[in-house]
Amino acid sequence: MKYLRFIRNGHVGLAAAAEGEEFFGRFLTDIPEFGDLSDALLAGDEAVASLCECLLQGEPVAFEDVDHLPPLISPSKIVCIGLNYRDHTNETGSVQSDYPTIFSRFASSLIGHRQPILRPRVSRNLDYEGEIVIVIGKGGRAIPKVSALDHVFGYSLFNDASLRDYQTRTPQWTIGKNFDGTGSFGPYIVTADELPAGAKGLQLQTLLNGEIVQESSTDEMIFDVATLIETISEVMTLSPGDLIVSGTPAGVGVAHTPPLWMKPGDTCIVTADGLGRLTNPIADE
Amino acid sequence: MKYLRFIRNGHVGLAAAAEGEEFFGRFLTDIPEFGDLSDALLAGDEAVASLCECLLQGEPVAFEDVDHLPPLISPSKIVCIGLNYRDHTNETGSVQSDYPTIFSRFASSLIGHRQPILRPRVSRNLDYEGEIVIVIGKGGRAIPKVSALDHVFGYSLFNDASLRDYQTRTPQWTIGKNFDGTGSFGPYIVTADELPAGAKGLQLQTLLNGEIVQESSTDEMIFDVATLIETISEVMTLSPGDLIVSGTPAGVGVAHTPPLWMKPGDTCIVTADGLGRLTNPIADE
Repeated sequence: MKYLRFIRNGHVGLAAAAEGEEFFGRFLTDIPEFGDLSDALLAGDEAVASLCECLLQGEPVAFEDVDHLPPLISPSKIVCIGLNYRDHTNETGSVQSDYPTIFSRFASSLIGHRQPILRPRVSRNLDYEGEIVIVIGKGGRAIPKVSALDHVFGYSLFNDASLRDYQTRTPQWTIGKNFDGTGSFGPYIVTADELPAGAKGLQLQTLLNGEIVQESSTDEMIFDVATLIETISEVMTLSPGDLIVSGTPAGVGVAHTPPLWMKPGDTCIVTADGLGRLTNPIADE
Repeated sequence: MKYLRFIRNGHVGLAAAAEGEEFFGRFLTDIPEFGDLSDALLAGDEAVASLCECLLQGEPVAFEDVDHLPPLISPSKIVCIGLNYRDHTNETGSVQSDYPTIFSRFASSLIGHRQPILRPRVSRNLDYEGEIVIVIGKGGRAIPKVSALDHVFGYSLFNDASLRDYQTRTPQWTIGKNFDGTGSFGPYIVTADELPAGAKGLQLQTLLNGEIVQESSTDEMIFDVATLIETISEVMTLSPGDLIVSGTPAGVGVAHTPPLWMKPGDTCIVTADGLGRLTNPIADE
């Protein structure tokens, strides 16, 4: 199943699509008994199944015509993984750690498919990072690797757009990763059953103005999906709807000579097998 | 005014106290029209004033006897500042940056006054960090320093308990700052009108088992409250109820020889003029 959120005439809606089928959906105001997708995830499998059935009985939602929003609007955690592809670690001149490099985004930075990534007034060093997102379905603490994939609701795409000058103003990257309008998430969540276990073997590409700038396979992740869930949940309780943004491969703009920054008028696309194409124009704030 | 959250027989309550007076409060289930303090903050000044009036007309709440919770349970942001006191920067051997060092906590790590700080199974390197918290009242982006203090609802205390081995596993500190049961926040929020502007000149102390281990003044903050709000809001929209945890002075356990770790049976207190005493026992997870 795929899930997307949209907005029409100021009303937020949810839509679902069975594999290979079109989207059908409803406005949230018409289904107050279900709440948003985040509410259903918190309530559990039955609530998600009921919501899904209700959406599939709704009106057709044309994926190409609708105004998209992030599939989840306020995850309680957006755990981001740095340096999770060896070729990217190398291009940045960083040391590869034997433990995941973890930072975070606030939900205030999220945008959806086709919404503009904003180049802020204060920086020109706007870089792309195409990534796979893990969406937690079943929460937990100290989740062992062997059952970690049972906790995944689905997967999606992310453009972890980064202001490189702010990211390196101090050794902590958080500030360069949290400008408003820089965390693109979508276009939809694909449930885990429609993808290989652990999202293995997916070709991941980032295109800037139609040119491939990043290309790798999720098989190249140093810490795979199950390992990330085990490692993060050793420290903190994961909750339904939490996101793990799993890291980017080589090819980022800052590693080009001269650096390849995104600028207004550009279009950046992140795509991976089975997860669609997350497209964002770039605009000045 | 002071605001605290408590729990009794499984029911969450809110209480308020005028300056120098006792607390009066109500259970949230008895005031559904007001919601939690976070809801009132989002709704604006009038909603907060109405909630306050309603609480003051409630039942007496004995500060010493009640089971406390964090004053806000799920802030949309917990922005943490590192290296904001020069003596602490020096004791850690870090380089003092001319820009705030920013990382974050997830709300899943929060506990309240008198709840135990948890030493996790996987680490013994549990350290204290006494800090002042800024609670945002009025949201905004690109807030100029000159009006920054108008955006402060109030202040509180924080023990930013840190697992030092996890904090330094990679250059990103986030993972060592986000163990469940390590972010102590409280005992209450004191509104800005009861304190000096910008919480200037407050004596801040941390005591471990009755002995003073950290002692400084908020005047020693390198980036003061107004500067932090200006700097952070240049990047991201601040929302009502967001927290800025403003950094810790010298004296942390890791800088002792040998290191002074917190262990089960210990009691850690963070205190500052006008903000009360945030007390936490230490317990094994």
